[in-house]
Amino acid sequence: MYEVEVKVPAHLATVADRLADLGAERTRTVVQEDTYYDAPHRDFAETDEALRVRRETREGTTTARMTYKGPLVDDESKTRTEVETGVDDGDDADVLFRNLGFDPVATVEKDRRFYSYDGYTVTLDAVEGVGEYVEVETEVESEDAVEAAREGAYGVLRDLGLDPADQRRTSYLGMLLDDS
Amino acid sequence: MYEVEVKVPAHLATVADRLADLGAERTRTVVQEDTYYDAPHRDFAETDEALRVRRETREGTTTARMTYKGPLVDDESKTRTEVETGVDDGDDADVLFRNLGFDPVATVEKDRRFYSYDGYTVTLDAVEGVGEYVEVETEVESEDAVEAAREGAYGVLRDLGLDPADQRRTSYLGMLLDDS
Repeated sequence: MYEVEVKVPAHLATVADRLADLGAERTRTVVQEDTYYDAPHRDFAETDEALRVRRETREGTTTARMTYKGPLVDDESKTRTEVETGVDDGDDADVLFRNLGFDPVATVEKDRRFYSYDGYTVTLDAVEGVGEYVEVETEVESEDAVEAAREGAYGVLRDLGLDPADQRRTSYLGMLLDDS
Repeated sequence: MYEVEVKVPAHLATVADRLADLGAERTRTVVQEDTYYDAPHRDFAETDEALRVRRETREGTTTARMTYKGPLVDDESKTRTEVETGVDDGDDADVLFRNLGFDPVATVEKDRRFYSYDGYTVTLDAVEGVGEYVEVETEVESEDAVEAAREGAYGVLRDLGLDPADQRRTSYLGMLLDDS
């Protein structure tokens, strides 16, 4: 499975109006608070690893999960080890990692509004301290299909009045850290 | 809250018969598999810390939780920091910690049969690679009440045909590691 994802800065209210005009289906809204940690024994920025505790609130209910992301195994397909499991309490997981010596480096907070449009998931992200972005993404089965899917995502951006040339490849965490 | 706990080696079948004779109430049976980890950046044996992932199976259902135990804060009352939260999948938590550099040092597997008797919890523990033990425990509100509660626990042991002088203070993990 290959994930194709394109992200551009945007004025969300304008894009939301455009999505309504296009008849896109609004599927759900979540608030995500992602805390990222540094390891006491290696530099995750250097090793290209990440440890994250995510709290997600949806319709008043908060769930949490912890995720480890390993370094890229294959640069071409962007494959990396990812291990994730739900935790009963995100605050307890946070305290446990701090006690183990993992210090929080940044917390990314975002409101995400999800839409379904033309076979793509369109996400309107308001990211605290970073700005407003639109992500267009889909998954394809084979590597051969990646290029066409990316072109399709660019088409969706154009439908929304956005320019694919504005694409950003830096993660929200990266943007937040660059800014600070 | 103070936990009073006394543990002695015992022949569990004999003790189970004795508990039945005494009319003790059998409350539940669980299988616990506790994996303990070493840290990549400090020696938990030296710092008196512990990281544990416990899988507990009860009536066919397995749940898991992760626990951090800090060093003793107060030697007298045996107080230590303990942070614990449930995790959806113990195997995923295990893989996550391994990826973070925490290596499993030992896994303690035990069958535990719990009974309620005379205000105490009596636990019949069959610990793989360690042996059979009976634990008698209760909790008291104040430190003043600890001594009387301990005497009471000794009384329960005597009722079960066991000798309080056989008390062991080493944890099952400690016994398993001493033995290997």
